[in-house]
Amino acid sequence: MTWIDPRFQSVADVFEGFALDDPDYSGQFAAYVDGELVLDLAVGDHLGPDDLTGVFSCTKGAAGLVMALLVQDGLLDLDATVAHYWPEFAAEGKQDVSVRQLLSHQAGLTGVEGGFTEEEYIHSELAAAKLAAAAPRWRPGAAHAYHGLTIGVLMEELVRRITGGRLQDLYEERIRAPHGADFYLGLPEDQDHRYRDVLRPAQPGSPIDVDPFGQAGLAYNSTAGFAGPDGASLDLLDLPNQPRMRRAGISSAGGVASAQGMAKVYAATSTGVVLPHGRRADALLTGPTQRAFSQTQVYGPDVSHGGLSAYGVVFMASDPGNDFGSWRVFGHNGANGSIGYADPAYGLAVGYVPARAEANGTAARNGRLSKALRRAVLDARTPQG
Amino acid sequence: MTWIDPRFQSVADVFEGFALDDPDYSGQFAAYVDGELVLDLAVGDHLGPDDLTGVFSCTKGAAGLVMALLVQDGLLDLDATVAHYWPEFAAEGKQDVSVRQLLSHQAGLTGVEGGFTEEEYIHSELAAAKLAAAAPRWRPGAAHAYHGLTIGVLMEELVRRITGGRLQDLYEERIRAPHGADFYLGLPEDQDHRYRDVLRPAQPGSPIDVDPFGQAGLAYNSTAGFAGPDGASLDLLDLPNQPRMRRAGISSAGGVASAQGMAKVYAATSTGVVLPHGRRADALLTGPTQRAFSQTQVYGPDVSHGGLSAYGVVFMASDPGNDFGSWRVFGHNGANGSIGYADPAYGLAVGYVPARAEANGTAARNGRLSKALRRAVLDARTPQG
Amino acid sequence: MTWIDPRFQSVADVFEGFALDDPDYSGQFAAYVDGELVLDLAVGDHLGPDDLTGVFSCTKGAAGLVMALLVQDGLLDLDATVAHYWPEFAAEGKQDVSVRQLLSHQAGLTGVEGGFTEEEYIHSELAAAKLAAAAPRWRPGAAHAYHGLTIGVLMEELVRRITGGRLQDLYEERIRAPHGADFYLGLPEDQDHRYRDVLRPAQPGSPIDVDPFGQAGLAYNSTAGFAGPDGASLDLLDLPNQPRMRRAGISSAGGVASAQGMAKVYAATSTGVVLPHGRRADALLTGPTQRAFSQTQVYGPDVSHGGLSAYGVVFMASDPGNDFGSWRVFGHNGANGSIGYADPAYGLAVGYVPARAEANGTAARNGRLSKALRRAVLDARTPQG
Repeated sequence: MTWIDPRFQSVADVFEGFALDDPDYSGQFAAYVDGELVLDLAVGDHLGPDDLTGVFSCTKGAAGLVMALLVQDGLLDLDATVAHYWPEFAAEGKQDVSVRQLLSHQAGLTGVEGGFTEEEYIHSELAAAKLAAAAPRWRPGAAHAYHGLTIGVLMEELVRRITGGRLQDLYEERIRAPHGADFYLGLPEDQDHRYRDVLRPAQPGSPIDVDPFGQAGLAYNSTAGFAGPDGASLDLLDLPNQPRMRRAGISSAGGVASAQGMAKVYAATSTGVVLPHGRRADALLTGPTQRAFSQTQVYGPDVSHGGLSAYGVVFMASDPGNDFGSWRVFGHNGANGSIGYADPAYGLAVGYVPARAEANGTAARNGRLSKALRRAVLDARTPQG
Repeated sequence: MTWIDPRFQSVADVFEGFALDDPDYSGQFAAYVDGELVLDLAVGDHLGPDDLTGVFSCTKGAAGLVMALLVQDGLLDLDATVAHYWPEFAAEGKQDVSVRQLLSHQAGLTGVEGGFTEEEYIHSELAAAKLAAAAPRWRPGAAHAYHGLTIGVLMEELVRRITGGRLQDLYEERIRAPHGADFYLGLPEDQDHRYRDVLRPAQPGSPIDVDPFGQAGLAYNSTAGFAGPDGASLDLLDLPNQPRMRRAGISSAGGVASAQGMAKVYAATSTGVVLPHGRRADALLTGPTQRAFSQTQVYGPDVSHGGLSAYGVVFMASDPGNDFGSWRVFGHNGANGSIGYADPAYGLAVGYVPARAEANGTAARNGRLSKALRRAVLDARTPQG
Repeated sequence: MTWIDPRFQSVADVFEGFALDDPDYSGQFAAYVDGELVLDLAVGDHLGPDDLTGVFSCTKGAAGLVMALLVQDGLLDLDATVAHYWPEFAAEGKQDVSVRQLLSHQAGLTGVEGGFTEEEYIHSELAAAKLAAAAPRWRPGAAHAYHGLTIGVLMEELVRRITGGRLQDLYEERIRAPHGADFYLGLPEDQDHRYRDVLRPAQPGSPIDVDPFGQAGLAYNSTAGFAGPDGASLDLLDLPNQPRMRRAGISSAGGVASAQGMAKVYAATSTGVVLPHGRRADALLTGPTQRAFSQTQVYGPDVSHGGLSAYGVVFMASDPGNDFGSWRVFGHNGANGSIGYADPAYGLAVGYVPARAEANGTAARNGRLSKALRRAVLDARTPQG
């Protein structure tokens, strides 16, 4: 099941170099160009080519594609107020917050005092009710901070309000199942044998005190006393290793995938891809829909940690400190260093999943892969003399 | 007069450690939790437990509480234009500036060319008239910079326009006197014997050239030639040591207090506190009013110095670079390293006043105290097994 | 032609020190105060006092003065939509973009995929049509990035739509020719003998990979494969050395000038200056027009490179990281380290042009000159005892 299009051998070399540099390394990497699979690789002992594992916030990308379909279908207007679809949301001065602000980390609803339970994340109408009742943590639109554990709750509630159904079911029906893609929001029991545990990072960071009522503490859902973000992060890394959490597939961080599965979903969405029965399908999202979601909506310092970040609608946008693609790229990375994205300027759709959580996230391995891929596409496009 | 609730011994240890580490150290520290005094401490030779000294921009917090009362009473609408209350303010394209922008350092009125005299600060209708006539130093709402020496002028004028009276008198009548709190906007002559001079920092910074017509120079009121911010700061540090300035109690920086006085004012405002005659009073500000003023209104680089800062309405907000409390904290620090604040998420009301001005401001001592206090409150809340 | 007003000897010493410190140094420097020439200097072998050379983005300043005249004449409203003047601009969701946003680097039109040819820059209606059809690279108003190679195109198109003529012709007729100033948007053939080549920097930076479809790559017009900004920058430095480009005088970067010429244009604009026939003319721009264009419109991290920058309308604004004048300064620097500006708070109008491109831009030499000039003006204003 390993495949290397010879035009992309240079990129395969980068990926395979990870294992040469680190005997412990294991991971998956896959890429489509213009809907054709050009790379499908797995190295190391832990993750084989068909194995699945947790991809954390990459899950937000899958959920974001559902939101994009709702916009494309005319069921959701980014410039409407959230309260238009969800009247209870108008509480505490949030009546003018737009869907666009909500979905680009600007609404000030990163968390609630006391935090959320696992139950409230899984039955997210419970968490959503708390967020609807909450005062925004900053004046909506005046700043932004990553809604790492709530943007999924907010998307799930919007889907419920608009369609009456579950975001996960809509994703399964409209996106995953038709393409037979290994990127699940809720891993079915009959696929559970393919799941491999997320491995802890080799050198976990030292825990840091975080005020559970501070901007960072709320965003990390650090409820009980002073919990470190690394402590919280360690808990988070165990999340998909719990069968009940894999089954739930919460939209913020509960997805399970292979690199090839993530790449296929983004290819299906951005360029179209060959379906299981052999027909080549059109891209699920039109160019205008892709641009509406990839366009940078905010860029500046994150209220929770002070670092610069950029977001489109739901998706991460490339920025000078996190250069994972062109101005049209849309995708999301995850806490273990995984990433899935489409970059329409290159016709690219990419998935990367390490077996062992990578402390430095996108900065290192997936950034090198992204750079090598873009160069290879440009080289492949250049007419040979 | 020294008091340590045993549950907060760990915090007292941090404060008393300052004097152990530095034989020259003197200062006051006090904290209320849920309206009860849990710490009231003074160490060192210079400041005794009942002494008073200058608290500089902590004064803005006292003035901000007056603005909060006006909003709570329905006399001031944060989303109205300033010109609605103060028609002359509409000059030079400022007709749409909102009270919210004005009070969160976004209006671009940090200073005027040529600066203000002491007379204009004291009779602030004179300084206010200059600001009303001024062109904003940036497009209002497009940026922010600390209005260190003008936000008090602007608050005083708003109070005059709305009530016909002086901000300082309203503060005295509504907030200070009923609680007998040692936090004065205008120190009465009969209390002057309790005043102790602000001491210069042990190692003053070297003076830096500042353009008197530049964003920083305007904000520092550096009128005559090139004045250094440290030069200006030294002058500022002498301000409350002048009896006439203590008497005036200008809202930007002229307050005189003890740590206990500041803590009591914030307790009275946020949780309620026992009154002099023994009755426990309700909090002066309701929860919604507190949230309206503590909510982060701006976060980003300050136009005057380029560093990141966050402000609520009038009050400083906690941010990643200045973590002095939860997302609900409201308070203000001062040029000498003093601070006063309420943190409703913890039921805390706190005052800290060093005798000798501390060069590195909140980053050091008051930050350590804040962290220890929050941990102690969390520990005290945890049911014992 | 060299002139030193004795009150500004200290500033002349700074400039002449550049040549003492570096035998290879050559450059021009000129300043007006209140419309009188106080300094007109040239040192080194390459640039004599009457020579001309390329001034790159300083050109934007000349073009910006034309936009200011249009606003002053009531022909252009900064708060109107761009589409009001240029209906095709409304495409791709840009119908609400204001002239103010367009001219302060907020519209998200830094470049187009595939880039622009030299022909499209020179016949800028071609480049303008591409920009009108383009989707903004971020949500207009949500962020900003330097439109280094497109703001001139956009200004030229606005002039065409409003007046039917060329920006360069309007500049020549209204600003340059009446003052006989050596600052050309399109160098006439009969002045070409005065042109001296821009010299390459002594130590060019090492080339860096830039994604041609990334925010930076679009802004640098890096069309063919991965081009380095230094590679691009080297090409750019050669631009005015091509006679056809000098003749075209594109508004983004094609101007040719002497330091004295730039200073005179800014003096004519801000304070008025003596005309060739001897009469002292009023300033071309009124105080309100100057303030409308100098007022800071945006301050924050640039989407292309992440560094903090501030812009007025068209012009650069002084900010903590680029302190070249007071809050009222307006001007622009260029890729070779040149700068031209007016600082009305000081009555200053200044030009600086190095013969050899300076790698560190405004930070070094022109910053030192600006600081010395401001101090000298303050000293000259102080009444002697």
